[in-house]
Amino acid sequence: MNLGALDTFAYEFVGREIWIEFEMPEFTAICPFSDFPDFAVIRLKYVPNERCIELKSLKLYINSFRDVKIFHEHVINIILEDFVKACDPLRVEIEGDFHVRGNIKTVVRASYSKSA
Amino acid sequence: MNLGALDTFAYEFVGREIWIEFEMPEFTAICPFSDFPDFAVIRLKYVPNERCIELKSLKLYINSFRDVKIFHEHVINIILEDFVKACDPLRVEIEGDFHVRGNIKTVVRASYSKSA
Amino acid sequence: MNLGALDTFAYEFVGREIWIEFEMPEFTAICPFSDFPDFAVIRLKYVPNERCIELKSLKLYINSFRDVKIFHEHVINIILEDFVKACDPLRVEIEGDFHVRGNIKTVVRASYSKSA
Amino acid sequence: MNLGALDTFAYEFVGREIWIEFEMPEFTAICPFSDFPDFAVIRLKYVPNERCIELKSLKLYINSFRDVKIFHEHVINIILEDFVKACDPLRVEIEGDFHVRGNIKTVVRASYSKSA
Amino acid sequence: MNLGALDTFAYEFVGREIWIEFEMPEFTAICPFSDFPDFAVIRLKYVPNERCIELKSLKLYINSFRDVKIFHEHVINIILEDFVKACDPLRVEIEGDFHVRGNIKTVVRASYSKSA
Amino acid sequence: MNLGALDTFAYEFVGREIWIEFEMPEFTAICPFSDFPDFAVIRLKYVPNERCIELKSLKLYINSFRDVKIFHEHVINIILEDFVKACDPLRVEIEGDFHVRGNIKTVVRASYSKSA
Amino acid sequence: MNLGALDTFAYEFVGREIWIEFEMPEFTAICPFSDFPDFAVIRLKYVPNERCIELKSLKLYINSFRDVKIFHEHVINIILEDFVKACDPLRVEIEGDFHVRGNIKTVVRASYSKSA
Amino acid sequence: MNLGALDTFAYEFVGREIWIEFEMPEFTAICPFSDFPDFAVIRLKYVPNERCIELKSLKLYINSFRDVKIFHEHVINIILEDFVKACDPLRVEIEGDFHVRGNIKTVVRASYSKSA
Amino acid sequence: MNLGALDTFAYEFVGREIWIEFEMPEFTAICPFSDFPDFAVIRLKYVPNERCIELKSLKLYINSFRDVKIFHEHVINIILEDFVKACDPLRVEIEGDFHVRGNIKTVVRASYSKSA
Amino acid sequence: MNLGALDTFAYEFVGREIWIEFEMPEFTAICPFSDFPDFAVIRLKYVPNERCIELKSLKLYINSFRDVKIFHEHVINIILEDFVKACDPLRVEIEGDFHVRGNIKTVVRASYSKSA
Repeated sequence: MNLGALDTFAYEFVGREIWIEFEMPEFTAICPFSDFPDFAVIRLKYVPNERCIELKSLKLYINSFRDVKIFHEHVINIILEDFVKACDPLRVEIEGDFHVRGNIKTVVRASYSKSA
Repeated sequence: MNLGALDTFAYEFVGREIWIEFEMPEFTAICPFSDFPDFAVIRLKYVPNERCIELKSLKLYINSFRDVKIFHEHVINIILEDFVKACDPLRVEIEGDFHVRGNIKTVVRASYSKSA
Repeated sequence: MNLGALDTFAYEFVGREIWIEFEMPEFTAICPFSDFPDFAVIRLKYVPNERCIELKSLKLYINSFRDVKIFHEHVINIILEDFVKACDPLRVEIEGDFHVRGNIKTVVRASYSKSA
Repeated sequence: MNLGALDTFAYEFVGREIWIEFEMPEFTAICPFSDFPDFAVIRLKYVPNERCIELKSLKLYINSFRDVKIFHEHVINIILEDFVKACDPLRVEIEGDFHVRGNIKTVVRASYSKSA
Repeated sequence: MNLGALDTFAYEFVGREIWIEFEMPEFTAICPFSDFPDFAVIRLKYVPNERCIELKSLKLYINSFRDVKIFHEHVINIILEDFVKACDPLRVEIEGDFHVRGNIKTVVRASYSKSA
Repeated sequence: MNLGALDTFAYEFVGREIWIEFEMPEFTAICPFSDFPDFAVIRLKYVPNERCIELKSLKLYINSFRDVKIFHEHVINIILEDFVKACDPLRVEIEGDFHVRGNIKTVVRASYSKSA
Repeated sequence: MNLGALDTFAYEFVGREIWIEFEMPEFTAICPFSDFPDFAVIRLKYVPNERCIELKSLKLYINSFRDVKIFHEHVINIILEDFVKACDPLRVEIEGDFHVRGNIKTVVRASYSKSA
Repeated sequence: MNLGALDTFAYEFVGREIWIEFEMPEFTAICPFSDFPDFAVIRLKYVPNERCIELKSLKLYINSFRDVKIFHEHVINIILEDFVKACDPLRVEIEGDFHVRGNIKTVVRASYSKSA
Repeated sequence: MNLGALDTFAYEFVGREIWIEFEMPEFTAICPFSDFPDFAVIRLKYVPNERCIELKSLKLYINSFRDVKIFHEHVINIILEDFVKACDPLRVEIEGDFHVRGNIKTVVRASYSKSA
Repeated sequence: MNLGALDTFAYEFVGREIWIEFEMPEFTAICPFSDFPDFAVIRLKYVPNERCIELKSLKLYINSFRDVKIFHEHVINIILEDFVKACDPLRVEIEGDFHVRGNIKTVVRASYSKSA
């Protein structure tokens, strides 16, 4: 996988815990079984530690899944890992809300908490 | 009862707890009292342990109730037991949201937690 | 096709045009391509002439599609023809609102007007 | 049938056509087939001629169906006739929005226009 | 009745027909039968001729009904007449959407068109 | 009060706690103050112990309030007591959502928990 | 302030804790700054001890604020105090949901718990 | 542009005019200005003449825009032309409902009517 | 007023009438009476003749009202005139949906049709 | 930054904890990256200690961001700090709900609790 880089900027209020929440309705990737496109809304919220994620790099990162073959359950884990690596947040919650496939709608949720 | 088999695939992030949620709006079975068809939306969410449920087999499993005579309260328990047997999850929550019968709408909810 | 019979009763206000509208959320049949079940909400409204459709026979008629193999576009034409034959109404409008298949949601609408 | 009387008061702006619309969510009567209670929301709008319907008598009139055995399709015609007789309006539109019975929801609509 | 005055200002695009629509959710007056307060949302839209209604005077005009005893059906006719007198519009549509009284919700609608 | 009997059937999964939830939109009784009809939606959810409530008897029980004179606050307590007596559940939550009276909407909620 | 009296009646199930919830959409008072009318929906829920609040007196009490000059923040405290004094409840939660003023919407919430 | 082929099947009720409506929420293409992906919901309804569009080929046709560079305004015209060429319908209405770009949401609508 | 320029590009399907609809939720200007900011959602739809409006210039044009003092009723007429001058469309409909001021919500609508 | 001053008035019920919640839908500032305007709805709720915030000064304070260049994440921290400094509340929760930028919607939440 050749995904976009996630850039960051300094959080100026280190020590004050805030939640930053993004809704990204334009996720698309390729289903490894059928080679057909998949679509999802990705929602991600986090508590920054010392760095915030820069919005434009996040958009390009999400766009970079367009030609990637990947399962629903794994997409969410990979975004979570890349996000944590990029900005070392205190907490993250992520949700992938996928379109109906085979009469079934799927939502996948994962979370992360920095150990003290 | 001759229900469809539930297939699984390996969960690649064993140890990371995620919730996977399915909404299946096309459940239908036969009411044992009246022999008339019943209809429901089934919602099921689970935390995988080492195996995930494969989506197409889940669809066929749900379809396989079409000619089965069964009560609302028992449907939910049976799906829960078959699901647990198939993929040994850490936790499951299931809900059957049935159409109005006799002026009354019924929702049945059950849950399961793997003992440590 | 072996569909249920549509019974009628006398409309006591012949000459006064009223609209009678039914919503039937429990239509299911079999797709001739895939042999998988199809689901739809059927909406039908009509202006009675001298006979009204009896509600219970309408429910049994809709139920009788359960094992029938038929296309979306034809279901609606067949219900329309059977309905007109059963009660000779002045006007009918019918709509089949089908579940998503192949990422596409389909609605089919037909209508009938008794020539003077 | 022993229904309540509909009282009226003088419309002070005769010649100016206005629409007056009532929503009455507490209609109940008895089904002649099953002897079970039926429930509906009744919506009625009219253009007064020289008399308006008094609100309290309308409420009592609707309440007086509580022990009456009557079909959906006829309720609407009877309310329409009683209303026209009581206040001689220029136009009336009436709708009965009945609860689900036998998996089917029914709405009945009728209208009246005073001939010139 | 001692109602507030409706002020106007010049419409700078005379000859271009536009619709101006106001929603005023804070109408209250006194019911002449019961002496209890009544409440309504008033919606008014008009096509100005040479004058537009000034917004603050409209608010004060609506407020000035607070201690007035008046029927639902007449409120709407009086606002319509005062509005037409104040700004000589090409067209007006007005609607009073009143709170439930005696289990019945009432909406009253009137309109005006300047004769050529 | 001469209310309908609540029948039960055996719960086949004793020891597995499930929630069964009913929505009954057709409750009507008589107000003891005014002798006018009252209307409510009753929502009841419970965890069965060894018996489940049979749906048709529940519908007839709710219907049997039609000519009973009773206050909002007491209706809910009486249904709760009759329900507990009938099926000895582990937990019950009940809610009566009544129509507007005197400009005020009322909801009453009660609950029960079987002591160990 | 000369507010209406709150009457009560005996709660017949003393010892069983129930929640009774009222929604009163017709609160209006006068802003002490501007002398303009204010409007709000008041929501109040309580657990009765030995007395319940009588509905008609509650309506008249709310109506009695019509000519009172009072701030948003204080209205809620005064209703709370009067309510507690009138029926000595176990718990009360109250919310005033006020219309937009100065482009800002305000909601005020208070609560009370009887000490053991 | 190398778009998918649209297949058809015979309409069995030629002469009866029905509307067939599709909602396709998974359109994506490339913006020619920015090279960034665009997203839209495409809605298309038509009256068949002698041929209906086959659903699976329609899905593949929509998928085939994934790597095409094209403007919003032109997408709709091209789908309309291809659709008319494929099945020679009596009437078509099409709508492209595009995601926000530059703070502005865009919807494009076109229609076609077969000349007699 | 020093407003942004509206750029255009060639419409490639001249003769085919399509509707292009924009929703622009970020309009703000200054009220000439109070010097306070006003806010609105502007909705504009048009049928292009030979030129389409370029989206980015439209965004900058809307942004350029930020420091302009102007009345609700005139804003809509000015945008309409500038739009017609810029791209000579066949038809335009425009709507300004303004935030509540003085307890009143205002919507202003205008339209244009090119004479043949 | 030259922001408006936040005025206060005495809370007359010191010791009774109430929540006061404001929704302010007219926040706009300037993005430091692009110099384009940003828009948000700000929601703020607090428990007053001895002083309440005066509504008109809060409106002017929010308006005073109109020409300020500031990031989403920092706006929320600055409003929180100014609010705490102005009225020394017991608790505050604040949320900035920003418009879509770069296909991504952002919400930022922060909170404050006075240490005992």
